[in-house]
Parts: sequence; structure tokens; C-alpha cells
Amino acid sequence: MQELVLGVDVGGTNTKFGLVNTEGDILVEGSCKTKGFPIFKNYLAHLMSNVDNARAALPEHRLVGVGVGAPNGNYNRGTIEQAPNLEWKGTVKFTEELKTYFNNIPIILTNDANAAAIGEMTFGSAKGMKDFIVFTLGTGLGSGIVVNGEVVYGSDGFAGEIGHTLVNVFGRTCGCGRKGCLETYVSATGIKRTVYKLLADYMCESELRGVSFNDLSGKMITDAALRGDFIAVQAFEYTGRVLGMKLADTVAHFSPEAIFLFGGLVNAEDLLMKPAKHHMEDNMMKNFKGKVKLLVSGLQNKNAAVLGASSLAWKELKAS
Amino acid sequence: MQELVLGVDVGGTNTKFGLVNTEGDILVEGSCKTKGFPIFKNYLAHLMSNVDNARAALPEHRLVGVGVGAPNGNYNRGTIEQAPNLEWKGTVKFTEELKTYFNNIPIILTNDANAAAIGEMTFGSAKGMKDFIVFTLGTGLGSGIVVNGEVVYGSDGFAGEIGHTLVNVFGRTCGCGRKGCLETYVSATGIKRTVYKLLADYMCESELRGVSFNDLSGKMITDAALRGDFIAVQAFEYTGRVLGMKLADTVAHFSPEAIFLFGGLVNAEDLLMKPAKHHMEDNMMKNFKGKVKLLVSGLQNKNAAVLGASSLAWKELKAS
Repeated sequence: MQELVLGVDVGGTNTKFGLVNTEGDILVEGSCKTKGFPIFKNYLAHLMSNVDNARAALPEHRLVGVGVGAPNGNYNRGTIEQAPNLEWKGTVKFTEELKTYFNNIPIILTNDANAAAIGEMTFGSAKGMKDFIVFTLGTGLGSGIVVNGEVVYGSDGFAGEIGHTLVNVFGRTCGCGRKGCLETYVSATGIKRTVYKLLADYMCESELRGVSFNDLSGKMITDAALRGDFIAVQAFEYTGRVLGMKLADTVAHFSPEAIFLFGGLVNAEDLLMKPAKHHMEDNMMKNFKGKVKLLVSGLQNKNAAVLGASSLAWKELKAS
Repeated sequence: MQELVLGVDVGGTNTKFGLVNTEGDILVEGSCKTKGFPIFKNYLAHLMSNVDNARAALPEHRLVGVGVGAPNGNYNRGTIEQAPNLEWKGTVKFTEELKTYFNNIPIILTNDANAAAIGEMTFGSAKGMKDFIVFTLGTGLGSGIVVNGEVVYGSDGFAGEIGHTLVNVFGRTCGCGRKGCLETYVSATGIKRTVYKLLADYMCESELRGVSFNDLSGKMITDAALRGDFIAVQAFEYTGRVLGMKLADTVAHFSPEAIFLFGGLVNAEDLLMKPAKHHMEDNMMKNFKGKVKLLVSGLQNKNAAVLGASSLAWKELKAS
């Protein structure tokens, strides 16, 4: 009987899930609402009934583990803690509650970027690498750090918050309550803010002048940039410059073999990667120059979150 | 017969060494010149004859390992590479050459700050901690990072260069060839530069107005500050502010249990620690606030470099 794990990606609006084999094939996938269930137990019942339906469509199989990626997920405690984009306040005992649905199989939870890093190592382009970092550029900026083949969780399970390192102490306000965090520049939201700054700085024409802030999306900026729109191209240049500068700091901490970028903005390819590489190299110490690969994630445009979450469980199973 | 390891601390001017037991007692110590031996083999012969003399003073013992801390020391390769403050250019095959003096015992080399971190874990205040960082404030700023109980060496053995993360892209020139590195602000040299900046900014009296840049030392600034000299006190405040701000970035990467500060400047105690703590807390994300201890090294004012170097060898011996 085929052994599968359930990978769950908890997002602010929707939850995606999939049943994944040891090769990283998603045999069946599904999704359900996250929003609209202020009581966590009700959300879990809703999720599990969707999972059960999906499993019914599969030939006979054995579920051997569950991996969950979630914002503010704490690996050490199996909890989601004070996640600003979720309706459940305080600390949610996610794995403890989920265990009641399963018969003694490992259930592992971490934040979405750590799951992406494990996914990169298991199914993506970091196979065989022991020291690398994954940046996920979405609404915010997540980062998963791998040292010696293991994710860095830190003493309280919250390591890897590179999105909240400082670019400019007088900079943009951040959802975390501070100012000038990296994710206020380098993320889908960050590049929107940059576009609006540039539309104020310059008076040249741009297809983005007709779009309100609320309507503007990372994809629209990417598409405009790929068509050569000056403001959009400059916005990627600016984003890449800030990212590259901070990547040099991260390299000085870890000396990684590679840094992977994942997310919609990465589809702009060279428009983002080129300035990011240039400014990373430019800001690095001599002994790191030319040694650190900056690459597009091997899971780009795949269901990386579900693959990452499932790889968490596969990793745990292989270690035990 | 008592088992001892030899701990060697290679400095730009002098080399210190000691024979250390498993409890961290230095049974005999000595030093010799580093400078004045442009040919590495000659330096090594000079060092080893000094070590042999020191060993002759000890009762019968068995040497079971050698640990070396050196600037730009590479753990993976046992080499010193492009160390700006040493006379040997390029790559020095330190452990390979040193092996010819010993009969098949482990010889381990790393940079001085990594050795300090292992020393802190073995003989200092980080006993039992798995995630912590040591900052050594000397002529420059070194850092040794421990994750999951292991020093982070990174993919090429040069991780932990937090002294060369960026404070200000338009900032002070650094020995590494860039501008605005943390160590140009937070180190004995950095605080000298800050004193000179403040002597220019203010016109108040200060006992430091009579001292030339070349004559000014970290100890003079510490002593003046402890006597209440306004410029010296402000220099510590400024140093602590810059350090605290960057520590928040480091915390976001690692989520450590504690950060230890070591070096002469740390003898100013609260004059440095208070602003550093304040600005670290002020710049951290909510979920780290109040959780990370900022402490004086448990090896402060001890021969930490020799203890650190010896602990390298003890650690290796215990692991094997």
C-alpha cells in the first residue's frame, strides 16, 4: 500500500492541502477557507472533512504523517502564535488539536518559509546542499535558513525573520509595528509601495498611473516591467538593490552555498535577479565575493507551500 | 598521566599559548612573537620551541590535541586565508604544517571569535546553551555563532562575519575595503573614531582633547567614561546604540537564547551594556522582546583566546 503524507499550507484566506508521496508528487490536492472560522476547532473540522473527501478519491493508501506550514508557526511547540493575519488570537495549539483526528502519526508544524526551505532541500534545487537560505516573497517576506542540513529554529522556534531586519530606521511603517523592515521594501506589498513612491518622484508616463493602490498587484507590476514600463522596471531595480544590500548582511552571518528566491515577483526574472545579484556582490566582503549563488527556487510556480509542508513530515519520518 | 591540550591564539603581533586540562585550568602559559617571521615555517619553529620550553616546566603529561584560534582561520580547511594583519600572504596551511611536529593527535583551527564561542560553551557562561552568539570587541569586531550546540561555519568555513554587516552605506571606511561596516563603529578602533567625531561635534571640555588619535586607546576611553567624562560617556552611548540596533538584526536571523560580549570595552559595563540592551530591545520584533539575554562573557578578563582555542580541541576529542 502506498504511503503518503498530508501537507497543509495555512494561509490567511485559504488553506491548501495535498497528499504527497516520497518523490514529491502531489497525488490529490484541495483547498478550503481559513477565514470565517473564528473558533479554531470549527476550522479544523472543516479542513478535515475536506481532506477526507480528497482522500476518498485516491486508491487505497496509508497516511504516515502530517506536515503543516503556517504563519507564525512554532516548530518547537507545534503552535501558531500571535499571527496578525489569522482570526485566532493568542496561541493556537495546532498540532495538539489536530492529533485527535489521527491515530498516532507524526504531526509537524513550522512557519511557511521554513517549510519552503525543507521543500527546497527535499524536492527542489537544494538537494545535497547543507547551508542555504530560501526567501519567499509574497504579501510579506519570509525566510527559512538551513545550517548543516538542519533548519535554524533558534532558542524559541522563531528564527529566520530576515523580513524584519532593518533597512532604514526612518523608513516605511511595517505591519510588525516598527519602521523600515526589509519586507516593507522587498515583497509584493513592498514593490507596490515603491511604485507609488516612484510615481511621485517622476512625472514620466506609466501604465501604472491609472491604477489605484488597492487595485495594484505584484503581477501587474511584473507584467508592466516585462513590457518595459519605466516606473515598473525602476521599481524592480530599487527592490533588487535593497534586497541585494541586505543579502550581503545575511551572507556575512551564514556564509551559505546558495540563496533561493521564491514567489510571484521572481517571475520578473532578470529584472529582479540582476540588481539583487549586483548589489549583493557589491556589498559583500572580499572572501564571500563570487562564491554565493543567488538562484530562483526549484519549486517556483509549483505548489511549493504544500510540497514544503509535506516534506516536513517526510523529513521527520526519515530521521526516526 | 594527566591529559592536556595545547591552546594557541595567533595574534598579529604576539602568539599566546597555554596547556589546558579538561576543567579549563591553564597549567602553564607562554607567548612568543608572531611579527618578524615572514616565512611561516620559521614562525612555527619559533612557536614550537617556546611550547617545548613551557612543557618542560610541567610534571609528566600527555598532549592529546591542539586547538588554534587565528584571524581568518578556516575550520574546514585548517588554513589561515588572506589575513590582513598577518605577514603571511595568501593561504597558510597551518594545521598541515603543524602536524609535522606531533604524533597523530587532532589539530583543529578556527577563527578567534569561533574559538571564543566554543570557549564560552565549554568553560564560560554558555554551558548548556544551544543557541547563542559571542561578540569579541577588540581591534575589530569578531563573532562566533552557535546553533543547535554547533558553531556555524557555513559552506566555506567563513560564517560569523557580523563585524562586516552594514550600518551605513555612506559610513566609515573599513579595513575590509568597504564602507560603514559594524566594526568601524563597535570595536576599540571604532570607539576611538567615535570619540574623534564627538570631539569635532561638541566643544565641551574633555580629558581626551589632549590625546592624539595614535595615542588614544580603548582603555583610556573606558577610564575617562568611568570618571564621567562627557565625550567618553557619549562615545559609549553611541557605540551601544549602533551595536544594539544591529543586534536586533542578528536576533531576527537566529533567535538566540543569549548574546555575550567580550573584550576590553566591556569593562565599561553599564556604560556600554545599557544602551546596547535598550536599543536592541527597541529595534526587535515583538516576539523577540524581553527574551534574549545580553550578557558579559563568562571569560571576560580571563585568557579567553587560549581557553577558546583549547576548548576547540577538547570538543573534538569528546565528539570522537
